[in-house]
Amino acid sequence: MTTFVPANARRTVSPHLPFGEMRGGKFYKQDILSIKQFDHDDIEFVFGVAEEMRAMVERVGTFDLLKGKLIANLFYEPSTRTSSSFAAAIQRLGGSVIQINDVKYSSVSKGESLPDTVRTLEAYVDAIVLRHPETGSAAIAAAAAHKPVINAGDGIGEHPTQALLDLFTILEELGRLDGLTVTMLGDLKYGRTVHSLSRLLALFNAKLRYVSPDILRMPEEVVGELKTQGVSQTEHRELGGLLAETDVLYVTRVQKERFADLAEYESVKGAYVITPDTMTAAKDHMVLMHPLPRVGEISTEVDADPRAAYFRQVQYGMYVRMALLALVLGKA
Amino acid sequence: MTTFVPANARRTVSPHLPFGEMRGGKFYKQDILSIKQFDHDDIEFVFGVAEEMRAMVERVGTFDLLKGKLIANLFYEPSTRTSSSFAAAIQRLGGSVIQINDVKYSSVSKGESLPDTVRTLEAYVDAIVLRHPETGSAAIAAAAAHKPVINAGDGIGEHPTQALLDLFTILEELGRLDGLTVTMLGDLKYGRTVHSLSRLLALFNAKLRYVSPDILRMPEEVVGELKTQGVSQTEHRELGGLLAETDVLYVTRVQKERFADLAEYESVKGAYVITPDTMTAAKDHMVLMHPLPRVGEISTEVDADPRAAYFRQVQYGMYVRMALLALVLGKA
Amino acid sequence: MTTFVPANARRTVSPHLPFGEMRGGKFYKQDILSIKQFDHDDIEFVFGVAEEMRAMVERVGTFDLLKGKLIANLFYEPSTRTSSSFAAAIQRLGGSVIQINDVKYSSVSKGESLPDTVRTLEAYVDAIVLRHPETGSAAIAAAAAHKPVINAGDGIGEHPTQALLDLFTILEELGRLDGLTVTMLGDLKYGRTVHSLSRLLALFNAKLRYVSPDILRMPEEVVGELKTQGVSQTEHRELGGLLAETDVLYVTRVQKERFADLAEYESVKGAYVITPDTMTAAKDHMVLMHPLPRVGEISTEVDADPRAAYFRQVQYGMYVRMALLALVLGKA
Repeated sequence: MTTFVPANARRTVSPHLPFGEMRGGKFYKQDILSIKQFDHDDIEFVFGVAEEMRAMVERVGTFDLLKGKLIANLFYEPSTRTSSSFAAAIQRLGGSVIQINDVKYSSVSKGESLPDTVRTLEAYVDAIVLRHPETGSAAIAAAAAHKPVINAGDGIGEHPTQALLDLFTILEELGRLDGLTVTMLGDLKYGRTVHSLSRLLALFNAKLRYVSPDILRMPEEVVGELKTQGVSQTEHRELGGLLAETDVLYVTRVQKERFADLAEYESVKGAYVITPDTMTAAKDHMVLMHPLPRVGEISTEVDADPRAAYFRQVQYGMYVRMALLALVLGKA
Repeated sequence: MTTFVPANARRTVSPHLPFGEMRGGKFYKQDILSIKQFDHDDIEFVFGVAEEMRAMVERVGTFDLLKGKLIANLFYEPSTRTSSSFAAAIQRLGGSVIQINDVKYSSVSKGESLPDTVRTLEAYVDAIVLRHPETGSAAIAAAAAHKPVINAGDGIGEHPTQALLDLFTILEELGRLDGLTVTMLGDLKYGRTVHSLSRLLALFNAKLRYVSPDILRMPEEVVGELKTQGVSQTEHRELGGLLAETDVLYVTRVQKERFADLAEYESVKGAYVITPDTMTAAKDHMVLMHPLPRVGEISTEVDADPRAAYFRQVQYGMYVRMALLALVLGKA
Repeated sequence: MTTFVPANARRTVSPHLPFGEMRGGKFYKQDILSIKQFDHDDIEFVFGVAEEMRAMVERVGTFDLLKGKLIANLFYEPSTRTSSSFAAAIQRLGGSVIQINDVKYSSVSKGESLPDTVRTLEAYVDAIVLRHPETGSAAIAAAAAHKPVINAGDGIGEHPTQALLDLFTILEELGRLDGLTVTMLGDLKYGRTVHSLSRLLALFNAKLRYVSPDILRMPEEVVGELKTQGVSQTEHRELGGLLAETDVLYVTRVQKERFADLAEYESVKGAYVITPDTMTAAKDHMVLMHPLPRVGEISTEVDADPRAAYFRQVQYGMYVRMALLALVLGKA
């Protein structure tokens, strides 16, 4: 397993080759449904394209790589962050978006099936970004569609672009991905992001540390799967002792809507809060991440700490989505 | 009444003349409110432009014919399909759209009249696409506006772009419009689309066959009007015997929301379902259409049949709307 | 205090200097939160840019001054007029907009704070337009953001672009701003627009006449503030006697939602209605304005009167917003 070369260095390796030349074809016209589609080298390739996107946005803001391309943002449940991220991504590439935010105002309220909705929309657009509350819906949509479908979250299923942006954040912040100690904190049971990120980190020789209340432990399904791959994993009730070795601290929200019993929610929600004291005990070169929105899990006093990467994480997400859009539409 | 020349043939008739030269002026700055505005030659002209749009989209996806033009999609009731179609149409022409989806979040909730809303919006945009639940609302809006208004459905009134796209679908699928036998199936009473399509087909020497449950028969108003024009019309309770002569089978949804009595709805909704068996009995060169969304009226097993045109119908709709936008904005 | 030179004259003063050369830097990367940011010369400068925008839109419709720029329209409460105006403004400048209309469908429903939402969105866009029901929210957002925030109304706080467009309307309609008699009619207590406009007019030597029912008088806070500046202000119960001297008649809506007691609303709502008779008694060169939406305060019979400027006022609003966007994004 090779170590990632930091971004700036990597960009100089073969300056005369158009990027995306070799592996780009693999993603052209493909759906992006699951992180399982990506092996180590695919991720390295996608992140190379994402770094090109970052460089272009920082230099010129917007450019015309996907001029004239049109995507649909088909959101069966609200997610301002994700839908805005895809909307910004396509528009910064010179394309446009048809936003379908609120399904009760769509023909779905007349009882249309997801495959029919997808086949209708693909008559208008070049790719469909789908957010849907039901696991497996993205695969159903992709099977019906002739145009690429990008899964922007299907219930407790997958949200592959979130997992990729989390990993890309680590790369951009630390300059490498291999052999890091990554501590995940909070709701590890219902937090879809930590499951996917753990699986991706397994490709990069990570040591995983899970810190959660007992009722919100990392599911046995994930732990068992990574164990067979020989990944170093340990479980903890408290964060303190782990800070000295932690390269990445990934904090998750304890989501009220996941609890059947509100009293249970109240009993755990404040248990794992990051404060300036936490940061004092942490390593100097360390990344503090959160998928957002946060509701108190990280004190706002921490925001000014240079290690607090959660708002930059949002921006890295746009670069990753720009890269994926360019790849599936054949322009990267 | 001349027969339509198939698309490809027609395009070569006068290759050196810019299309739209002669009749285009007729639609410039005009409202599109009703199919009654279109005579036989107008339709031929609009469809010629729509075929140019199809050719351009197939070749380059998007082009800058309406670069810088801005339309408002003013939707007082939800219609994802129609609003997305117009949004895609203007964007594939290089223009943009301001989407106003949900009127309870507009100033209308403060009691503003439709004419005032239209006069406000036209200060921002170059044309207004209006969907409104009340019959006659499009005419009211057009009377108030100085910019073109396109009726995208006004209650049980008209939905002229739907009627035109239905007819355009027949042309593109069969290569001609004249003298066809068109069988309409399902809810012919409340189905606005079949009323308008019947009237358009009357311009092209069609034989019309109406198949419906007794309580959902084609309204006497339509039947009487076409009778005075000498159109061949017959009414039926069953489809079977008609398949051998049917060139176009137009299936409609039995819309739950039209029924005051739900039991009545349940008793008829499954009565007219298209299956692979239906298709076996149908002609080899035949078009199966549906305005969508469908809720079981056509079995999904039929989707793979090359005669099943309902998803291509969606795409033809985009071309027709591109043509109309280009015409009213003076660029076709 | 100098008098404004009418637009056309002013444009010829220094034809060889790119406009915005001198004062433009003052607004670059700044927030637009309050009319208090603008002194007399700032307003003159902004209006000069707005007139350039008007000239360009009238000539070419759309142009690429802000090509590639992306703004977010973050609306925590509905305002079709204002959000459409900003959307049109950025699009007529060649940029694009991410519309976030309906906050219950955003991550805000998951409990996210306004600063976090703003810091998230600014990762995607170049400026944020904010509408929020709470006074002071725009300042909170601006303090959190690194990109410019434009206040599009924060409760009973400010709505600076509305105040500027009202003043710009007067300039464009009458050709000057100095020394005018401006009569404000209707709900002067809850009408945020008349408070801001009064303060702006104080910079231009206006005589202010307030006409309202007793329970809806101009607040003592505003009257007192302008009194210390030596502004001529008088209060009235009836409009009649003032028409002979009125240069600008600014009518406001009696907003139902401001009244706790509906009976009180009913008793005053019809008291101050403008009819053709009002216009007969008014000066020949006079401007009738209204922030819209109206609900009967101005008879529709008056719409055809050339002095009725309320729909042109909407269009001037787009020019002012184009100017402000160009200034904060550094392109004017």
